[in-house]
Amino acid sequence: MEKSKQVLLAHGSGGKLSQELVRNMFVGELANEALCRMDDSACLDAGDGRLAFTTDSYVVSPIFFPGGNIGKLAVCGTVNDLSTSGATPKYLSLAMIIEEGLPFEDLSRVVQSIKATAEEAGVCIVTGDTKVVNRGKADKLFINTAGIGVVPRGVNISGVNAKPGDIVMLSGSIGDHGMAIMAQREGFTFSVPVESDCAPLNGLVAEMMKVSSNIHVLRDPTRGGLASTLNEIAAQSGVGIEIEESKVPVKDAVRSACELLGFDPLYVANEGKMIAIVAREDADKVLAALRNHRYGIDAAVIGEITAEHKNRVVLRTALGARRIVDMLSGELLPRIC
Amino acid sequence: MEKSKQVLLAHGSGGKLSQELVRNMFVGELANEALCRMDDSACLDAGDGRLAFTTDSYVVSPIFFPGGNIGKLAVCGTVNDLSTSGATPKYLSLAMIIEEGLPFEDLSRVVQSIKATAEEAGVCIVTGDTKVVNRGKADKLFINTAGIGVVPRGVNISGVNAKPGDIVMLSGSIGDHGMAIMAQREGFTFSVPVESDCAPLNGLVAEMMKVSSNIHVLRDPTRGGLASTLNEIAAQSGVGIEIEESKVPVKDAVRSACELLGFDPLYVANEGKMIAIVAREDADKVLAALRNHRYGIDAAVIGEITAEHKNRVVLRTALGARRIVDMLSGELLPRIC
Repeated sequence: MEKSKQVLLAHGSGGKLSQELVRNMFVGELANEALCRMDDSACLDAGDGRLAFTTDSYVVSPIFFPGGNIGKLAVCGTVNDLSTSGATPKYLSLAMIIEEGLPFEDLSRVVQSIKATAEEAGVCIVTGDTKVVNRGKADKLFINTAGIGVVPRGVNISGVNAKPGDIVMLSGSIGDHGMAIMAQREGFTFSVPVESDCAPLNGLVAEMMKVSSNIHVLRDPTRGGLASTLNEIAAQSGVGIEIEESKVPVKDAVRSACELLGFDPLYVANEGKMIAIVAREDADKVLAALRNHRYGIDAAVIGEITAEHKNRVVLRTALGARRIVDMLSGELLPRIC
Repeated sequence: MEKSKQVLLAHGSGGKLSQELVRNMFVGELANEALCRMDDSACLDAGDGRLAFTTDSYVVSPIFFPGGNIGKLAVCGTVNDLSTSGATPKYLSLAMIIEEGLPFEDLSRVVQSIKATAEEAGVCIVTGDTKVVNRGKADKLFINTAGIGVVPRGVNISGVNAKPGDIVMLSGSIGDHGMAIMAQREGFTFSVPVESDCAPLNGLVAEMMKVSSNIHVLRDPTRGGLASTLNEIAAQSGVGIEIEESKVPVKDAVRSACELLGFDPLYVANEGKMIAIVAREDADKVLAALRNHRYGIDAAVIGEITAEHKNRVVLRTALGARRIVDMLSGELLPRIC
């Protein structure tokens, strides 16, 4: 395929083109040690402590959806990115780009959600910014949150740390967020309603870290879904990842919706799930800790890290066949987060 | 005037309605000590050090203008906001919302500027995010940067610290950025071209701090201009501010452009200027330090802090009359930054 001279929607997909854009244009030009690790949050020296620092913009459409809204998402997403480095999320910034004409009632509902979710996660919103652009120059509301967390001494959790023999677990079912947005956007109704899983996972991560100091990787599978995130980790760590299809939790309603609409749940976005890659000897303890938490009730071991097929993710199907699961290519659902 | 039920462009002006929105909707709901100070960056405890944390989104139109572009602006704005707390800017995040179809050539020019400006300012871009939205759902490119700085021990510079008797100085001429954008947007050409003053001011601030530990307030007068920023400080500190019109530097070309187009330079945005409010005994030293720096050559004392007319800014005109200078009301130039 000829290289595009323009930015395409797929450059924002969380898949291959996203990775290419980020690697070539941003990381290539702005290279430094923290940025080049390509983790969801940067770990930094500042004063005498180690900090985690992350940012995300939220452009989800529609801004209200079953299970959440853009405000809840903006807090959860950044809290979860900080949590993936084992940091305790502390401070958030909040920057809004508002399209002229947004009803104050909508803005207020979003701010209420931000408040409630920040309280649940135990983070403070300490600085902010507001821009308003003319009608037709944005779409209702875009939110950026950046976050600062404190990394406890001795903790080193990163996408580069997966080792052959490690166990791969997932905190619950996949595809809920993506299919909730899809259903809302297209006006579909299902017999069992599909709700976004949008949730702050710092409490869940804290419980895991209490029982194990051998958590090697944490990562929340958002844009691009489980498949793309596992591919990123495989590449960062230079290992293979083998997953058993039958062990990956998918809710019946989400599975039906995916079948109906032609989506593979492996590529559908999540906003309240965590992948944990853990030393084999601690796997049972960590799984128990996950299942003991309200956001990890359906947690499951889904596979393991291998020395074979480096940089690749392999799926063992229910029938015993193996297939390579690649990163998302193209764009599945624009503006999912 | 009846209260609007919708967000208006003026809510993003940096003037009265902006302040109302931020106070009522955001600070009111999300209140905490750092946020309620209403400084340009929040000062935080993290680990054993004090950190400054700030965020800004940039929606300037056009994205390229004489003297800079949205990328340079996004680095300077956040570096300058950190500098206003006396912090040494260290780390930046970079989040882009790109409209589908943006030429890579434009994106690349912006990234090059980001790189060059970050190098000049001595900051690292350590984390980022990229979103792409459908054509017509954004306007070419919006950028958010958040920044972390380290506040040296014992430094306490804040908008709440102005004291009667303090001297008000300004690092150079006003109105350059706003009029450069205006000219570019409307296709005006002036005999002497007007360029944005967009610049990272952390070096300038460091020079001031070297010669004085009695700098009480630093603030960069961006949206809403010098007049709105001085009003914010007067309200934060509960003091009066008296300014001499004839001492406020305005370039001839900017003055002509303002006269032609009916703007008051006091309300026009700047992106490379700093207001410093300094204890009277240190004023000469600080002014000398400013004038010795490439970004402060035209620095001037423009007025003083008074115990009278609390919360108000008073301008002494060239003819000796006094008038109250209010915050910007309405919207002067949408999407100036």
